[in-house]
Amino acid sequence: MPYFDNNATTPMLPQARAAWLAADEGAWQNLSSPYRSAARAHRLLEDARTRLAALMRTVPERVVFNSGATEANNAIMAWTASALPAGALARVSSIEHPSMLASARKHFGSRLRAITVARDGRVAPAELDEAMRAGRTGLVAVMAANNETGVLNPVGEIAAVCQAHGATFVCDASQWIGRLPARDLPARAFLVGCAHKFGGPKGVGFVCFPEGAEGFRGMLGGKHEHGHRAGTENLAAISAMMAAFESGESHDAAARDERASWRDVCAAAVLEAIPGACVHGAGKQRLWNTLSLGLPRHENTRWVARLDRLGFEVSTGSACATGSDAPSHVLAAMGVSAEQARRTIRISSGWTTTRADWRALGRAIAEVWRTLESEAPGSAVIEI
Amino acid sequence: MPYFDNNATTPMLPQARAAWLAADEGAWQNLSSPYRSAARAHRLLEDARTRLAALMRTVPERVVFNSGATEANNAIMAWTASALPAGALARVSSIEHPSMLASARKHFGSRLRAITVARDGRVAPAELDEAMRAGRTGLVAVMAANNETGVLNPVGEIAAVCQAHGATFVCDASQWIGRLPARDLPARAFLVGCAHKFGGPKGVGFVCFPEGAEGFRGMLGGKHEHGHRAGTENLAAISAMMAAFESGESHDAAARDERASWRDVCAAAVLEAIPGACVHGAGKQRLWNTLSLGLPRHENTRWVARLDRLGFEVSTGSACATGSDAPSHVLAAMGVSAEQARRTIRISSGWTTTRADWRALGRAIAEVWRTLESEAPGSAVIEI
Repeated sequence: MPYFDNNATTPMLPQARAAWLAADEGAWQNLSSPYRSAARAHRLLEDARTRLAALMRTVPERVVFNSGATEANNAIMAWTASALPAGALARVSSIEHPSMLASARKHFGSRLRAITVARDGRVAPAELDEAMRAGRTGLVAVMAANNETGVLNPVGEIAAVCQAHGATFVCDASQWIGRLPARDLPARAFLVGCAHKFGGPKGVGFVCFPEGAEGFRGMLGGKHEHGHRAGTENLAAISAMMAAFESGESHDAAARDERASWRDVCAAAVLEAIPGACVHGAGKQRLWNTLSLGLPRHENTRWVARLDRLGFEVSTGSACATGSDAPSHVLAAMGVSAEQARRTIRISSGWTTTRADWRALGRAIAEVWRTLESEAPGSAVIEI
Repeated sequence: MPYFDNNATTPMLPQARAAWLAADEGAWQNLSSPYRSAARAHRLLEDARTRLAALMRTVPERVVFNSGATEANNAIMAWTASALPAGALARVSSIEHPSMLASARKHFGSRLRAITVARDGRVAPAELDEAMRAGRTGLVAVMAANNETGVLNPVGEIAAVCQAHGATFVCDASQWIGRLPARDLPARAFLVGCAHKFGGPKGVGFVCFPEGAEGFRGMLGGKHEHGHRAGTENLAAISAMMAAFESGESHDAAARDERASWRDVCAAAVLEAIPGACVHGAGKQRLWNTLSLGLPRHENTRWVARLDRLGFEVSTGSACATGSDAPSHVLAAMGVSAEQARRTIRISSGWTTTRADWRALGRAIAEVWRTLESEAPGSAVIEI
């Protein structure tokens, strides 16, 4: 069954599962224990940390393994809120993940300012720079790639703006890592990655903190992770994450461009078949795998259910918001109406999605359109 | 190699690994996604929640899956500190895990009071009751079974004291779950469990919160876990944890008593062979698997290294404190001197540890004693 919800989660890659099993069977000891097998397992952890640091262009001492992006975003907001000067403002983009937005509201309260996005879904560095001239900005949070639209933010330019103003930059790269090269992320930022978004297991991720944030502390209760995050280290999950990360990094620009072209061919076919359909955040600065498709009629839950029956798994939007009655805050920030947001489906492919899968999806969407239209009140024919 | 460090972590049980693989391969979807395979996976999660609630004598709505005990203790202290009245005191036992102690210090600060323990390592309910007559106590934290000594606290009586005073009871049961019946834990308490202590995977655990604590929130950012803890659910790990939990519950009192007797025979042999050796927290109210052995001479790091070479993995104390120069805070709370604490080793068996393993360990400890003594300055013979 073609799976088109990779921005929600991904199936585990075979090499990640193999790494998990190898560590679970051969290096399951508590890494803090004082005998040799534990020391060997601990070396595997530090080896993983060194490999991750190399991919992220940082040093191992600034890599903190944790349980995933939600923990990371919560911990970074909690720690920065107490570490920054009392009056410092936090500027957080309106399209951040709920784990960032909710944590920012909790920990910064009245010190929180929203960074708006344009209709294309991107944060504009010049506008951010302008806003930062007023008031003392301690922190800026802008995600690298949006989970709903795939839109990429100009994080290099944003990092430069932050540096010019002496603000800490927090960049949630959960949707970027494993899909685009980590080396293109800014080095001077809190960077967040989450394994299950790129073929690793659930329940594991990482934070790389920037120079100057050596006091960063997540959970308390032990000297694990060089003092930055307590809790027995989950070596099996970390090993699996590294296998998946390295697999993601093995793809080149040609592979990405090819996959983007398959997606774009599908989108063009859909736009031709369905008058009034649109792509949110259309443009080149997007993940190669994501298609946020606005449809002219019928609630997205109906689209998703029909596509599911035809064998295609797509989403109504971010998994975190599913079941919520509220329309997407990301689309709202881009100026999309609540009605249009409720007619939007999110399609996100993976590295193993084929050109044939995309073509078949395009045909399926057109078929669902014809079916839903024929069922609509006033139609001449009812098909089931 | 006989493994005697089960209080630090346990190898994954075969049935737990099988459950992990089954979920990872068959139910890896994001449980919040809107198609049928995700809904099926979500039902597996709620099934696991129902099974856990039954074992813990609570309702599924009060079960919160998370990344483990360190997260649980951090989250409970953070939330209760803000939810309790501003002047309410937190009374936390001196033998709690560092994740509880450090979180209590951070979140309660000057509102924190220590609960002392007697020489036997137990909290005395009558003394706690007496202390609670002065000042408004909002919270009491006492672990069910201590990780270093295996000493069991009278948690039923403590729960009754808390109820009489209207205080919230927080009971870290990380070392209890899977070893003793969960039904013997108090129902009206925050209860914490951690899978890798009982044959499940690392990176997963749970909180059961008591009636009245419906506002409990851990990490923010989504409606997962009925709104109590955000983050993509780790179904594979949760399924594995449940398989291990149910396996632990399958053992009966006779099986526990038999294993305690093997441990006690080993301890008796050691006390006979080594004049001046002692067992910390000796007595019946102890986990069947734990032996905190005070030795008359030689640093525990030397004991551990020698036993490791002979094929026995034991610990110097809690894994969290390994590498720290400070002697055990648990033994210090029991009145054990720093010198004696540095001559103490922790031995902790598992369900698969045999009588022969315990006998062999007893012989190995006696052998190491003879070797270390013979190497000591002034000895007539140097053996290596």
